[in-house]
This record gives sequence, C-alpha cells and structure tokens, in this order.
Amino acid sequence: MDETATTATTPTHDLTGAEALVRTLADCGVEVCFANPGTSEMQFVDALGRTGLLRCVLGLFEGVATGAADGYARMAGKPAATLLHLGPGLANAGANIHNARKARTPMVNLVGDHASRHLAYDAPLTSDIAALAKPLSDWVRTAGSAATIASDGAAAVAEAMAWPGRIATLIAPGEAGWDQGATLADPLASRGPRALGEADLQAAVTALQAPGQTVLFVGGPALASADTLALLAGLAAKTGAEVLAPTSNPRIERGRGRAAIERLPYAIDLALERLSHIERAILIGVDQPVGFFAYPGKPSLMLPEGAEVLTLAAPDQDGREAVTVLAERLGVTPLIPADAPEPEAPAPGELTPETLATAVAAALPEHAIVIDEGITAGRAVWPATAGCPPHTWLALTGGAIGIGPPLALGAAVACPERPVVAIQADGSAMYTIQALWSQAREGANVTTVVLANRRYDILRHELFKVGANPGPQALSLLDIGNPALDFVALARAQGVEASRVTCPAALAHAIAASVRKPGPQLIEAVLP
Amino acid sequence: MDETATTATTPTHDLTGAEALVRTLADCGVEVCFANPGTSEMQFVDALGRTGLLRCVLGLFEGVATGAADGYARMAGKPAATLLHLGPGLANAGANIHNARKARTPMVNLVGDHASRHLAYDAPLTSDIAALAKPLSDWVRTAGSAATIASDGAAAVAEAMAWPGRIATLIAPGEAGWDQGATLADPLASRGPRALGEADLQAAVTALQAPGQTVLFVGGPALASADTLALLAGLAAKTGAEVLAPTSNPRIERGRGRAAIERLPYAIDLALERLSHIERAILIGVDQPVGFFAYPGKPSLMLPEGAEVLTLAAPDQDGREAVTVLAERLGVTPLIPADAPEPEAPAPGELTPETLATAVAAALPEHAIVIDEGITAGRAVWPATAGCPPHTWLALTGGAIGIGPPLALGAAVACPERPVVAIQADGSAMYTIQALWSQAREGANVTTVVLANRRYDILRHELFKVGANPGPQALSLLDIGNPALDFVALARAQGVEASRVTCPAALAHAIAASVRKPGPQLIEAVLP
Repeated sequence: MDETATTATTPTHDLTGAEALVRTLADCGVEVCFANPGTSEMQFVDALGRTGLLRCVLGLFEGVATGAADGYARMAGKPAATLLHLGPGLANAGANIHNARKARTPMVNLVGDHASRHLAYDAPLTSDIAALAKPLSDWVRTAGSAATIASDGAAAVAEAMAWPGRIATLIAPGEAGWDQGATLADPLASRGPRALGEADLQAAVTALQAPGQTVLFVGGPALASADTLALLAGLAAKTGAEVLAPTSNPRIERGRGRAAIERLPYAIDLALERLSHIERAILIGVDQPVGFFAYPGKPSLMLPEGAEVLTLAAPDQDGREAVTVLAERLGVTPLIPADAPEPEAPAPGELTPETLATAVAAALPEHAIVIDEGITAGRAVWPATAGCPPHTWLALTGGAIGIGPPLALGAAVACPERPVVAIQADGSAMYTIQALWSQAREGANVTTVVLANRRYDILRHELFKVGANPGPQALSLLDIGNPALDFVALARAQGVEASRVTCPAALAHAIAASVRKPGPQLIEAVLP
Repeated sequence: MDETATTATTPTHDLTGAEALVRTLADCGVEVCFANPGTSEMQFVDALGRTGLLRCVLGLFEGVATGAADGYARMAGKPAATLLHLGPGLANAGANIHNARKARTPMVNLVGDHASRHLAYDAPLTSDIAALAKPLSDWVRTAGSAATIASDGAAAVAEAMAWPGRIATLIAPGEAGWDQGATLADPLASRGPRALGEADLQAAVTALQAPGQTVLFVGGPALASADTLALLAGLAAKTGAEVLAPTSNPRIERGRGRAAIERLPYAIDLALERLSHIERAILIGVDQPVGFFAYPGKPSLMLPEGAEVLTLAAPDQDGREAVTVLAERLGVTPLIPADAPEPEAPAPGELTPETLATAVAAALPEHAIVIDEGITAGRAVWPATAGCPPHTWLALTGGAIGIGPPLALGAAVACPERPVVAIQADGSAMYTIQALWSQAREGANVTTVVLANRRYDILRHELFKVGANPGPQALSLLDIGNPALDFVALARAQGVEASRVTCPAALAHAIAASVRKPGPQLIEAVLP
C-alpha cells in the first residue's frame, strides 16, 4: 500500500472510532457499503456521510444488504462492507451470508451493538451477537475500543480476502464507534491460496494417463476464468476425461467463444446416473460431489462406491494454477470447441419453461450477467443459452432461496456498464422482494424475469418423494397461487417498471427492450 | 391429560417419526403450525397433511411464521408450532424469535436438518443449526431418532410453556422424521411460576407504607389482566405509589372500564425525567428500567442513582399473584378510576401523527386487538385511545422492527371473532411485507394502517444525537421516500384490499368500514 496515500487522507481533527474504521476500510480497498442501519449504528452512518469515502446502498431488509454484497464481490473480486443492526439485523442477514459463505465470497459485516456497559441490563435489543455470528462466519471479532477498531477493520478485510474468500464479521460496541482518540490502521496482507502439492500433481498426471473413466470435478474460481475452461476442454480432448462442475457455482464464464462446462444435475437420481460409470475423480477447487439433500435409501455421496478420489486442489488452493500446471505437464493447449448453435427466434406458442428459455436465449445481450434463481421453472435456461454471446452466470450457492433480487443489485453496482438479467422463481423472489426498491433507487440496470408458476414447484417434486399420496392440505402448503401474487404491482409499488407477458416472443422483446434502457425492469412471465 | 383421548388418536399403522411428532404436538394442545417448509421438512408437511390435526398457515418468509406464532401465543395463551427450513430458515425467522423471546412468548420451533449421515459432506444447505439456535432460544434439542422425536416434541411444548413462556427449538434430522417405528409421547407438565418470597412481600408492604416516592414497575402477564390493573390502581390510590409499565409490552388490556396504565417513555431524556423524583422501585414481573439504547454520556439504568430497588416478582414469578397478595395485605380493593374522555370525531385538517391518532381512536371498535408497530409516527395513538372501548394492545417487545404484519396475522388466527387493527410504520412494514399475503390467504380480519412518512424517522432523531450536522449522504441512508413506496399496490399485489387516505375523517371512515368487513384491508395514511 501507498503510505503517502494513507497519510494524505488522515484528517487533522480528533478521530472517532467510527470515522477511523470507515477511513481504514476505504484504505483497504472497500468501496461500497450495503447498509440497513439502526440506532446502534448511527455513529457509522455519520462517519460514512462525513467522509463520503464509500458508496452507501440502502436496503429495506438486511438480507438485501448481504445478498447484494455477495453479488458485488463475485463480480468485483473484493469485498463490500455491510452495516447491520445488532443480533436481529444479523439474523435477517443470515440466509444470504450462508449463501455467500458457500460461494466463498469475501464479505465484511459490520454489526453494531450496545455500548459494553449496557449489555448487563438486558435491554430489548440485547442478544449474544458473537454467538449468533460464529456459525454464520469464518472470522468474528468484537472491537475492544475506539483505539483498536480501525486495526480490527483492517484485519476483517484481510480475513475476508483470504483466498478464495471468507465471511468476516466485526461487532462494534457503541463506545468503540463513538469514542474519540482513534487512529487509522494500515491495510494487512491477505493469505493467498495454499500451495499445490507436487505429489497431488503427479498423481493427477498419472491418473489422467491411466485406463478407466476419469472425471475432472471443477469448482470455485477456476470456473470464472475462460482461459482455465479452455485448458480443461483441452485436457478432456487429449485424455478422454470428462469435465463436470457442481450444480450451483459462484461464477461461470460462458457463451460463444468460450469452452462450455457441464454441471452435475440437481435431481439425485439424475446425478447418480450421470456419474454411474465414473471410476476416478480428480477434484479441483471443490469437494467431491454430494447430494443437495439426503433421501431415504439413497447415498449421500454421488460418486459410485469404490471410485478413486484424488484432490488436486482443495477449495483453499488455486484451481486455476492446478489446471495450468496439469495442462503443461500433459502438453495440452487451450481448446475452444465449436460453439453451440446460436439461439434462434423464440419458440412460438404459449410460455412453458422450455419456450421461456428460448426467449431468454434469443434476447440475452453480450456481456450480460445472468442471475440464476430460476429453481424448477428456470432449468431449461442454462442449456438454451449455451450459444449466446459471452456472458457471466451467477447462481444460488447455498440453497437458501431469496438471493436473486439482491444478488442482481450487487452485480449491477459492481458492473454498471453490463446488463444484468435475473432468472427468478416466484416463490424465491418473495423472500427479498424489497431488493427491487434498492434497484430502483440505485438505477441498477437489472432485468428481472419472474417465472410465475405460482407454486413451490421444487417442493411438490420433493413431497411426492416422501409422501406416496399427499392430500390437499399438504399440497396447499406448497401452493402460492391463492391468492395469486401480482409481481407487476409489487415492482411498480417499489419504483420499478414492470410488464406481464404470456408468450415467448413478447418475453424476448421485453428483455431486449429492458437491457437497452437504463434502470431496473421486471417482467412477469406467466407459466402454466 | 386424558389418556383415553391420546389412545383414541393412536393410528394402527407403523408410525413415522414425523407423524408421531405431529400427533404428539396435537395431544399437547398445539393447534396451529405457521410454516415455511423446504425439502428437509417434506416428511412433516406430509404428516401435517395426512393427520389434519393442526391448522397449517403458510408464510412466504420465515419471519412471517415466527412473528405470527408470537401474536397467536400472546392471544391464545399457548404456543403455536413453526416449521422452518434448516439453518437459513431459522436465521430468517430469528429477528421475530428475538422479539418473542423478549416478550416471553411460548413458541415451539421445528427446524428440519439433513439426515445425520449427510452432515459430514458439507452439502450446500449444511450449517451448524444447533449453534445458530442457541442464542435465539431458551431450549434447544436435536432429535436423536424416530423412536424419540415424539417425546422430544412433548418436552419442547413443556419447555415452551414454562412460565411465563419460552422459546423451544427442536431440530429434526431427516431420519428422525421419515424413519418408521415411532411411538406417541404423553404430554409433560410445565414448570409454573417460581413461588413468591415471603420476605419480598413483607419488604414491599413495608416500602409502600414508608415515606419517599415509590414506583410500582410492572410488566409481563400482570398487564394482560384487567383485574390486576384495577388492584394496581387501588394500590396507587391508597399508598401514593406511582404505577409504570415498560415502554413496550407483550399484552396490555385497556380502554373504557379498565384501569389505565402509564408506560415509560421511549426517548431516554424523557424516561430519565419521568423517573427523576423516584426514591424506590418495586419490580413486578420485570427487571428494572433500562435505556432502550445506550448513548454517550447518559446512564444505562433509568432510575436515579441511589434509588432503592426491590424485586417483588421477577419475570419467572407470578406478578398477578404478587399484586393480589400485596393488595390483600394492604387492605386494597380494585379501583377503576374514571374513564378517560370518550374519543370525539377525528380532528379536521391534514393528516399528522396527532390527527391520525384522533382518527384511529374515533374508529377503534370494541374488543379490538391493536398491533403497535407505529414507532415514531404512531406515538400519539396510545394516549388518544385511552378512552376507547375495551381493547388489547400488543407491542414490539424486542426492538427488532418487522413484527407488525405477522403479529397481526397470528392474533387474528387466535381470535377470529375479534377485529385486529395494526398501527404500522412504513419502514418497519417492509421487513415482513409478505405477511399481507398470508393475511389474505387466511381471510384474517386485519386492518393495517400504514403510517407513510417515507423515512426511518426514529433514526433521524437518533442520528442528530450522534452527528452534530449530518450531511446529505448520511440522511439519505434514513430516507425511504426515493422512490416512494406504494403500499396500496403492495397490498393489492398480495390479495389485500387497500386504499389511500390523506385526511383524518377518511381514515376513520376507512378503519370503521374495514373492521366490519371480513378479511384484511390496508389503509395507507400519507403523512407529511
């Protein structure tokens, strides 16, 4: 870091802890704060306003802040800060922190607390914030005082940036923010990826030259590199290995001119079938494939019993480097196979999950960021868009539905020059529907396509797996069509332009018009 | 419990753990389940549907389920069950669990988890649910197997009902629900209130006869008993003691024919001023008054330094009994002071917080249940409604905003014959706006009055306390008017009839019309 620059921003007045923390976060490279503050965070609101060093994005619910911080970091490659209100604010933020943690996204959560001397008296908002933060975070610290909070903040950023990314939560008791006498802290170095093992590299090389069907199971940052994907395609072509990614991934680069990658199916029977002939797996940046859920009488691990499992790069190692070295040793060069066919015009007829996918594919612009919380009704969009112009694909990584609208917001804040197209299931959308308001407020170029099938369709499938003959009361718990939700009204009520479409051509037209126009739009695609 | 009744419901087929649990919960008196289930809870959805023993109310977000369970239990005097989806579902539910815990509401949370054998593999939805549940709950247990889950459920209900009420969280690994070979469990006795201390009673009697200004600081179930409130008024009249309740309380019975009770002001300076002359406090069902938040240079405890503090009944003792015994020993009989004046017609002119209060008061029907999440703009409603027909007042107890819409839903489910009138701040409404959909689905007779001032007004007050001169960026983080939220559209989009009013007469008319008509309505009261 540039000492001069740090010194140059040092104010001459007596610093509060809050101002020292905000200035230090900025010095550490944090540029955005997604906030839903309360009384115990007013000193930070004041410091954010006073310094103007961070862009502040307000959410009307804490899950909006953390979901947006996830989307921002996946695209920006560095953490945003969130500002949350004591234990309940952290709880509300928790589901999307969970998703971010599973994505290994860097995130710095700043959670206000009462002044330390107040905690003994069980005020209404008192709770054990550290205990709540621990299962949600990789690193938790409670700031001791205004004198140390800036160095705590620098440590939080460094911990969040530890490769490939972690959840760092800093709890700030009142006095640590409002007391004076604080000093700025210098940025700290982050821990990079753990070095690859030579024995692991040799074992992988040997395995790829041995008989028996091998799969390269690849996840994490490797999928965000088009170069790595091209090397993987080269490895597959030369060795006969297959290449597979997990069902859900933080970020994949794909589309025309890029080597496509196949994902393991979500449904357990399809996943087991897909891997049934595999004799050996080489893991790159990810653990071995596991069922999304457990089911009676079905295995937890998806590889066939007896299959050999080699870890070339664990999640805390650099999968991109692993692929590069592997390719070098096997004399493999990048390969970009023939592109999938370019999408044609949207299919005629009514909207179904399949025809909807043709409409999205026909309209998807170059360099789009696709947000995938399409769940059941959106499954056809992935294959349909393989031949689209190059784009980036961000998915729900932790299974906690309700990340789509904030993830889109965060991606748009990170990349204001790129259109964001969100494929959004209706049931999932309702968990964080408040994010539409933040999209409008920020003028985010997000086009949300709501797949309105008016039921928790994925759960209907799951229920039939456990209940031979579910009755109407059980099914009614999975039916969100009574009353029908009007997503056009929900969007307009929050300042987002919206329309409803019932045929693929109209959907494609609406998407194309929306991505060209600044600001957010929502398109309710009514499915049968 | 009636053994015969339990036996009569015993099915003859081989029981799954899920069915045994649901049947046992019903045997223990649980009648309602507020649910937002996922795949890991499908065996419970199946069992709920199969048995038909519990009324199932679906929420589109977990905070709706727990907020509604709180409102239900405050009115029904017994717990509802909630059904939540793993760690992220519990996190989403957490803010309103926090509120319920501060209200000492009985609640039974059932949280699904993966099958135990699946937990080793870090599937996307895997998290440490027990660690997350502990800071939110008074009692946490992970069901060991299908053979024991029903007795775990009976224990959960007994723990929830331990006086005056607790949060019991039961985590159900997949196999504990879907395995067969389960048996029903008998209901267990709950722990009643801890006995009053004779020395404490004598000390209170002595104190009330001694010189010096005494305050009876009363909270918890005592406030939900009109008889207890009348005895408190008698005690005050006879001894010169003052009677005060905390700022926010789970349930107060009030209105014409009932002894009114004063609440401690929220604002710290007003609270300190109100108590400045107090020399002695007798605590009944509550801890001593503490600041809602801590502020630089202001005390945490609200009583003057040196004031004597006597605990007659701690929160785990029976405050109603304490008041009864105290009254007997001092020869005090119930007193119902003259009623406050009956509300007049709504004030003329524009809507302001004060004129809005006159409109609510003019329209409030007999036996209404008032939900108070009015925050800043709703403060005038409490005094204005003192002379209204008898009604019940439920407030935000834990300071975690976003309980109003679900609390109203739960109260309406518990008391379908009583109109619910919710005084709802706009900023707070957005945290759980999805509850409107459940209100519509259940046909709940809820009239929600949204106080649309389009800013986090309470935070503006707080910000000015820490920032001498907050700039536009800080203020913008407290401004929710850009873009303006359209609550009429948000309601209609979820199947709730809605209207917008801009004058007190129209507001009173709309409230009166809504309470007479079945089903929910929302009235957006536009404030300057």
